[in-house]
Amino acid sequence: MKVKTKNVLDLTDLSHSELMEVIRLADEIRKKPSDYADSCRGKILATLFYEPSTRTQMSFQTAMLRLGGTIIGFDNPQNSSVAKGESLKDTITVVGGYTDIIAIRNPMEGAAAAAAMYSPVPIVNAGDGGHLHPTQTLTDVITLHNEMGRLDNLTIGLCGDLKNGRTVHSLIKTMSTFKGNKFILISTPELTIPQYIKDIIIASDCSYEEIPGLADAIPQLDVLYMTRIQRERFSSEEEYQRQHGVFILDKAKMKLAKKSMRILHPLPRVDEIDVEVDYDDRAKYFEQTVYGMYGRMALIIKLLEGSVKEFPPRVMPTHPFRCKNPKCITSSEKYLPGIFREAGGDMLICKYCDGRRLI
Amino acid sequence: MKVKTKNVLDLTDLSHSELMEVIRLADEIRKKPSDYADSCRGKILATLFYEPSTRTQMSFQTAMLRLGGTIIGFDNPQNSSVAKGESLKDTITVVGGYTDIIAIRNPMEGAAAAAAMYSPVPIVNAGDGGHLHPTQTLTDVITLHNEMGRLDNLTIGLCGDLKNGRTVHSLIKTMSTFKGNKFILISTPELTIPQYIKDIIIASDCSYEEIPGLADAIPQLDVLYMTRIQRERFSSEEEYQRQHGVFILDKAKMKLAKKSMRILHPLPRVDEIDVEVDYDDRAKYFEQTVYGMYGRMALIIKLLEGSVKEFPPRVMPTHPFRCKNPKCITSSEKYLPGIFREAGGDMLICKYCDGRRLI
Amino acid sequence: MKVKTKNVLDLTDLSHSELMEVIRLADEIRKKPSDYADSCRGKILATLFYEPSTRTQMSFQTAMLRLGGTIIGFDNPQNSSVAKGESLKDTITVVGGYTDIIAIRNPMEGAAAAAAMYSPVPIVNAGDGGHLHPTQTLTDVITLHNEMGRLDNLTIGLCGDLKNGRTVHSLIKTMSTFKGNKFILISTPELTIPQYIKDIIIASDCSYEEIPGLADAIPQLDVLYMTRIQRERFSSEEEYQRQHGVFILDKAKMKLAKKSMRILHPLPRVDEIDVEVDYDDRAKYFEQTVYGMYGRMALIIKLLEGSVKEFPPRVMPTHPFRCKNPKCITSSEKYLPGIFREAGGDMLICKYCDGRRLI
Repeated sequence: MKVKTKNVLDLTDLSHSELMEVIRLADEIRKKPSDYADSCRGKILATLFYEPSTRTQMSFQTAMLRLGGTIIGFDNPQNSSVAKGESLKDTITVVGGYTDIIAIRNPMEGAAAAAAMYSPVPIVNAGDGGHLHPTQTLTDVITLHNEMGRLDNLTIGLCGDLKNGRTVHSLIKTMSTFKGNKFILISTPELTIPQYIKDIIIASDCSYEEIPGLADAIPQLDVLYMTRIQRERFSSEEEYQRQHGVFILDKAKMKLAKKSMRILHPLPRVDEIDVEVDYDDRAKYFEQTVYGMYGRMALIIKLLEGSVKEFPPRVMPTHPFRCKNPKCITSSEKYLPGIFREAGGDMLICKYCDGRRLI
Repeated sequence: MKVKTKNVLDLTDLSHSELMEVIRLADEIRKKPSDYADSCRGKILATLFYEPSTRTQMSFQTAMLRLGGTIIGFDNPQNSSVAKGESLKDTITVVGGYTDIIAIRNPMEGAAAAAAMYSPVPIVNAGDGGHLHPTQTLTDVITLHNEMGRLDNLTIGLCGDLKNGRTVHSLIKTMSTFKGNKFILISTPELTIPQYIKDIIIASDCSYEEIPGLADAIPQLDVLYMTRIQRERFSSEEEYQRQHGVFILDKAKMKLAKKSMRILHPLPRVDEIDVEVDYDDRAKYFEQTVYGMYGRMALIIKLLEGSVKEFPPRVMPTHPFRCKNPKCITSSEKYLPGIFREAGGDMLICKYCDGRRLI
Repeated sequence: MKVKTKNVLDLTDLSHSELMEVIRLADEIRKKPSDYADSCRGKILATLFYEPSTRTQMSFQTAMLRLGGTIIGFDNPQNSSVAKGESLKDTITVVGGYTDIIAIRNPMEGAAAAAAMYSPVPIVNAGDGGHLHPTQTLTDVITLHNEMGRLDNLTIGLCGDLKNGRTVHSLIKTMSTFKGNKFILISTPELTIPQYIKDIIIASDCSYEEIPGLADAIPQLDVLYMTRIQRERFSSEEEYQRQHGVFILDKAKMKLAKKSMRILHPLPRVDEIDVEVDYDDRAKYFEQTVYGMYGRMALIIKLLEGSVKEFPPRVMPTHPFRCKNPKCITSSEKYLPGIFREAGGDMLICKYCDGRRLI
């Protein structure tokens, strides 16, 4: 089955059945990697990393190399003439002429969507600021699929900074498309999940519950998805000192968990999982990175399948406005057309960054 | 036909017929790339970039990868131990031992010529300061050959900073070896072309005309070669504000041009070509980068054809003098022998940077 | 013959016969490289360089590429998210999941040993601070084997900073395992070799002599191993000015040497070998880097032979102490268990950095 999308800017660019196909292919590659050792022979992946993210970049690179393809790219904005004086449009147009597929990471929200407007080759979003990071979610879903044997009827604890954590939001969005999942949301009052994510769960066949401490939540979990809480997110240093331990996973808390529970983490971790837990068989965050590599291999194969180099048609502005989000790619790349979808009333939603503004 | 030169420091290192052969081969590769997918299997290209130039580096890298070869290199002078404490001679000797061909970029003029004195493998000059950049000119010529169908009897407009633009000088030198080309030189009075370039045209079967504004020049052009004018090149800010628009290519000026005209630009551009012009079919500056990749593929094949690793014979100084050009590679690499050719009278011309000094 | 060690942290990880086998294989590859052009097809080498060392990194990279393998990695600590916020343990665990073999360079002593405790794939130490650099010694030994035709009964001069030079210490340790070698130690009084290296020579079938000037020592040498003396190592600027020329190899001193003498240097050099000496046939320091590439090829082949991805068993602390060496990797990576061997009396020797402390 060929996927219909040319680009993966968000994981929702894949239909439910396309996602299942990518998961299935990742599994097949993992079992017989040698069958795929020449799948991308002669193809070149560009990893354009406008901010460093060594592990994500290495995951894409090894994925392409293990398919027999080759790699070019940069990871050093200060050092790159491309990253400096040139528009994203021009860089993408030129690199798209050289290569066959581009993975882009950029601190500005919507950068991958902007790149896709000009690229003759598939664009994979490898993270655009705090906005989207679909291959991390793909990684998470493949890990769940393999470690739990199913993607539905799971009780999934999500612990840490649920307010700002894009991987958490994206994982909930995707897992809400499966039936009967229950999300246990574990965070400080300041770092609870945004209302719009709750709305997504409510509208789905899934449910959620909020529990303020990890020890209280852990006994019922099938899966525990840990994330960082940054010190500066707490309301004060006293608050940090008082609360911080409540969200750290250690051997003591692991004693309260089911034998079949699995621990995931998008990495890198700081201190939210004690090193002792690494030796617990339920810890799967390192296996998770390997699943991620296979997921990226599957995605690259699917996007290159029958791919033809072709510039996308010109996109015209939908409204005579600019997005007001200072982190939106349109705020730094002025030539980008203002494109919005109408969200009812006077509300517009920016196509690039999903930022909202009034007409 | 094997090329005679071991290195390409300037495009003039290729004879006229060798250049035509490289152009022909680039065209053949472009039409049937799969025939060349293993041409350099087992060969390694080093890209030694002592100053970043991401696009040029990527063009060399993809060229080598598309020939089945592999790549190593650096692009980060501050970060590279090679670039720091070690002489160019030692770095080239060592890297020449590891690899099969070297593309070097260096801010000092004559650096590639110096590298060639010590390298056991072919050296391609990927830019030595403001001096030479032969693969850009090869790119330009291949683009003209393909887009215009011929390299003679063309009316070629060159617009921008004609005083300091090495790509413009190099293109005129090469195109002057073909018959009947007419160069229309479009620049401010401060940024006109050097007399020695005019002398080259006069001595050839070509001609030139100087026209101070782009709108006046454009109707007669077969080709418009745009380049940047840097703000600081104008005599004053007022002068910049007054003149600057005269050299910007926009939709209005495009209306004055022939339907068959082609626009080239060595990229990156700043604002001298309006983004609107990108959607005009006559804009060929992005295709140009792809032609450049094929040109570099052809050049790599030709230079590796029958290449044998061998250190060049030692070169002794011709005169007991040093070059006085502070940007000459001999000013930073003291062990380099002083080599000059005599230009009549007491005048010497430095072999590395083409700088002049009196005996 | 498969080597028994999974990792090469020090050259002593190879038995005497394994070392001879690696030397033999390097020689075979050098003679028929095409026989090995696919030896590592499908395998990925990660070069994790926490401090830049471009030449060493390029040597590993070309070694892997010439075996048909591929490469990923970083060389830029400031720029790498891996190098920044993440523990060495986590980085190694993840990169070991992606790749097949890791070459690591790190400014902290014992970093490679620490990496090996967590890596599912072979670790090659590409330099851990001033501690060990086994592939440099392998390079030196292969050069001697090829240039001298034997590894025993050689009179080997070692000139420069013998106090701090890890390559010198390591070379003496390895060459002391062969019979009848005589080490001529040439240095200032401040930079003489440590007593423990002398003890190793005394305990072997080899001998040593200390001679304070290069001119006095050179006539009897079969091999001269030159190293840098850093200006700041002299007791004063006057001392530097007075002594420094005594340790510089130039044409005049070469006249005193045997015709069959060979000059080695680990590179990069500063000014301790005059450029004129490069043209003397006895200079072998550039050939040495090529031997090093073949040595690394042989080592990679041997370590990957029958290699299975497997996490090493957990290592528990041997003592309730920490190493006191501030440059020891355990001082920055706090989770590392304290592991010591007892050296008699109350003395402990740190397993990572070989630092000593009392119980």
